[in-house]
Amino acid sequence: MLVECVPNFSEGRNQEIISGLADILSSQEGCRLLDYSADPDHNRSVFTLAGESEDVAHVLFDAVAYALKNIDMAQHYGIHPRIGAVDVIPFIPLEDTTEEDCIGLAKKFGKRLGEELKIPVYLYEKAATGKHRENLANVRKGEFEGLTEKMKNKDWVPDFGPLKPHPTFGAVAVGVRPFLIAFNINLSTQDVTVAKKIAHTIRFSSGGLPAVKALGIFLKKEGVAQVTINLTDYRVTPLWQVFDLVCREAERYGVAILESELIGLIPQDAIIGCGAHYLKFKNFQTDRILEKRL
Amino acid sequence: MLVECVPNFSEGRNQEIISGLADILSSQEGCRLLDYSADPDHNRSVFTLAGESEDVAHVLFDAVAYALKNIDMAQHYGIHPRIGAVDVIPFIPLEDTTEEDCIGLAKKFGKRLGEELKIPVYLYEKAATGKHRENLANVRKGEFEGLTEKMKNKDWVPDFGPLKPHPTFGAVAVGVRPFLIAFNINLSTQDVTVAKKIAHTIRFSSGGLPAVKALGIFLKKEGVAQVTINLTDYRVTPLWQVFDLVCREAERYGVAILESELIGLIPQDAIIGCGAHYLKFKNFQTDRILEKRL
Repeated sequence: MLVECVPNFSEGRNQEIISGLADILSSQEGCRLLDYSADPDHNRSVFTLAGESEDVAHVLFDAVAYALKNIDMAQHYGIHPRIGAVDVIPFIPLEDTTEEDCIGLAKKFGKRLGEELKIPVYLYEKAATGKHRENLANVRKGEFEGLTEKMKNKDWVPDFGPLKPHPTFGAVAVGVRPFLIAFNINLSTQDVTVAKKIAHTIRFSSGGLPAVKALGIFLKKEGVAQVTINLTDYRVTPLWQVFDLVCREAERYGVAILESELIGLIPQDAIIGCGAHYLKFKNFQTDRILEKRL
Repeated sequence: MLVECVPNFSEGRNQEIISGLADILSSQEGCRLLDYSADPDHNRSVFTLAGESEDVAHVLFDAVAYALKNIDMAQHYGIHPRIGAVDVIPFIPLEDTTEEDCIGLAKKFGKRLGEELKIPVYLYEKAATGKHRENLANVRKGEFEGLTEKMKNKDWVPDFGPLKPHPTFGAVAVGVRPFLIAFNINLSTQDVTVAKKIAHTIRFSSGGLPAVKALGIFLKKEGVAQVTINLTDYRVTPLWQVFDLVCREAERYGVAILESELIGLIPQDAIIGCGAHYLKFKNFQTDRILEKRL
């Protein structure tokens, strides 16, 4: 059962602690640390790991225990909102793993954190136990400093663990979300208003495509306007649909697409689906891929 | 070292022999029999196997030995040209395997057939030892019945094995070729001349794209004209380039593309490359595919 996990730790400055986390997260065969980065202003580090769910959960537990020992939220300052020494742990289904598989994993893992490490745990997004807990921003509202007050409210009784925040750790959000594809599309114009208008048309929050977040920005270095996009669920809205809508809108403004840029990784079925779409393959299934037969 | 192999046997009628071959070719872990079919008019059967080169060579040797025992070319009639009980054995590199790897494999395998089974072996296409032996049609010219005469010519001394044809087996061609992608594009017209004109424009033999073979035909059942295409090397001419040229030519005749159809299998990097192309991804490399990191 393959999963990805992208835990966020509230430490972006102390290299020793960041390396300590990286060592733990890459210590298990069957789980690979694909990438990590730390931001001193956010005072936060983000790790991307993937592998067999049991191996991922194993190293993750050790990393949370390490954060509990080494990060003191009472001393933590940073511009990114956070509720705990490990702020958020999203599990992402890969390949044949289902969302339900990951929800089971998130609950089992959250329960263990609550029982063995005595940390309050909130399940969020697809794993949330109430509508008001789905949105991570709601779970994080009030941040570490407001946790004691927040937890007195019966709406915010944690899913697992003690009923009060841990004094140095705070609390943690454990959830399940689909794979996020981040990509940018550069336009043949310096006019950022065109990029902003296109972003407005395509993003869900202003009436566009489901699972699409977008902003229009100006790239100083390249001297071009860019639509920067997060596709939060490519099974809901395929990548080609986002791209084609940007193309069509750009055309309305007499602007062309210069190129696009993928940030991070992309699941192979997302890009294979685009190939099959543009080639107009009838009834294409991924079992027609040679490598899937081997 | 992963390879594909598509051996052609000169038996398309006797189910017992065909099943016997299928059993041998699927008998080894590490090598999968992906597909096979037999044609009674051709009196020929084609098997597609893939896996670790050593496992592929292992089952293949046993299958050739079985054909040597069970197929008598002196009694063989069929409309497809052939020189032996196993007519042709092409090896196809998969994934990180190179053409050179496969040439080494073809030579080693051919040598073994010559030495242990006493069959004359001609290396062809990428493995050929002379320009005149590259084209399989040249190697096959004269067929089984003409072999004795042909082998007297110093141009046709076999690469391995005896200098005379085997009385019941004949000879075999062993070679290396790239993966072949077969696909068809249906046009929004009943006029087959449009499909023929497009095929003429795109195929290499009449001045079109390298590695492209194409014909224009009429599909009675669907009532549409179709361009039927063999792309013999998608690394030389990418699939999207063939598709785009067909689109552009169709447009010239006021015709649209209805849909396309993949025959058989496609290597994943061929279709991923199409996705990346149409999405205009800058500097895309397959190491950006999540699954390649696992």
